Amino acid sequence: MYYPEPIAKLIESYSKLPGIGQKTAIRLAFYTIGMDDEDVNLFAKNLLSAKRDLKFCSVCGNLTDQDPCSICTDENRDRSTIFVVEDSKDVLAIEKIREYNGLYHVLQGTISPMNGISPDDINVKSLITRLIDSQVEEVIIATNATSEGEATAIYLSRLIKPSGIKVTRLARGLAVGSDIEYADEVTLLKAVENRKEI
Amino acid sequence: MYYPEPIAKLIESYSKLPGIGQKTAIRLAFYTIGMDDEDVNLFAKNLLSAKRDLKFCSVCGNLTDQDPCSICTDENRDRSTIFVVEDSKDVLAIEKIREYNGLYHVLQGTISPMNGISPDDINVKSLITRLIDSQVEEVIIATNATSEGEATAIYLSRLIKPSGIKVTRLARGLAVGSDIEYADEVTLLKAVENRKEI
Repeated sequence: MYYPEPIAKLIESYSKLPGIGQKTAIRLAFYTIGMDDEDVNLFAKNLLSAKRDLKFCSVCGNLTDQDPCSICTDENRDRSTIFVVEDSKDVLAIEKIREYNGLYHVLQGTISPMNGISPDDINVKSLITRLIDSQVEEVIIATNATSEGEATAIYLSRLIKPSGIKVTRLARGLAVGSDIEYADEVTLLKAVENRKEI
Repeated sequence: MYYPEPIAKLIESYSKLPGIGQKTAIRLAFYTIGMDDEDVNLFAKNLLSAKRDLKFCSVCGNLTDQDPCSICTDENRDRSTIFVVEDSKDVLAIEKIREYNGLYHVLQGTISPMNGISPDDINVKSLITRLIDSQVEEVIIATNATSEGEATAIYLSRLIKPSGIKVTRLARGLAVGSDIEYADEVTLLKAVENRKEI
């Protein structure tokens, strides 16, 4: 027995997505067949449009449908700080807290010699170019707290500091709501080192 | 802050799928942007094709890309038995065990007065029509072991039996590999009632 070809192909497409196994793909494919024509057409259109219309901002490297992106062109944004992140999803995470009103720079990766990714493979050069003759006073490095993220942060810090621009990094410590009992040792160590008077 | 429109729309499409929440939809949308052009085009094509090219077999009600379906037209299939199931996924589940070589009838639902679904709303009439002047000797009712499935099974059985055709139902009992300790009471009761000499 086999699935009718159109459904077999759709199952295959679904199962290529991350975290979608064979069983889920089958469920999604059958669900799709039961959807309104309109919704399926829209889904297909949105897939193609996302792939075709999105590009990387030529200034900050963020995903955008207009170049330069809406953040880079926003006159109300503070041009004296740049928040350096690994990818576009991080920009959205920071925007959600509604605290930061400066600019961004999306590296689109981290330096990782083990995987053959050098500073030339990510958006480091464009960051340095942006800093030359700019109004930037502070670069906040917000790479992930992984070994590659840390290495990238240190590399960037050494590269930028000589120019006199302030370089900062996100604080390390206990996540809000977490138990000391379950915190890993390195996090706990950082939390003790960075303790604050109350 | 907002997502660039093309990605926001794609996230919306993904989050309409069952079991896909907002966070997963975001992850899938960003993954899609990183996919090969070719794979995304194929995905969109497969979505449209599944919706457009699949229809229900006019004989058995199974999902198919040709009418009548490949099972109904298969000369090697035993035409004396009909396996009655709720939906097309059940056909595939039965086909997988490679034990059954007869025909199918897909009800596309169950009788459910609570939800306003009467026998006229599912493929009951076409089943009865198929049985008239046919070679069918046995109808195996394989609706789900839910209250709606049971009610549908009993309804069909009462409808078909007067014609002299044998009506059977899948056995109830312990699932293979399951613990008696964790079996629910009704299942255990059925397992005791249907016990077999060894």
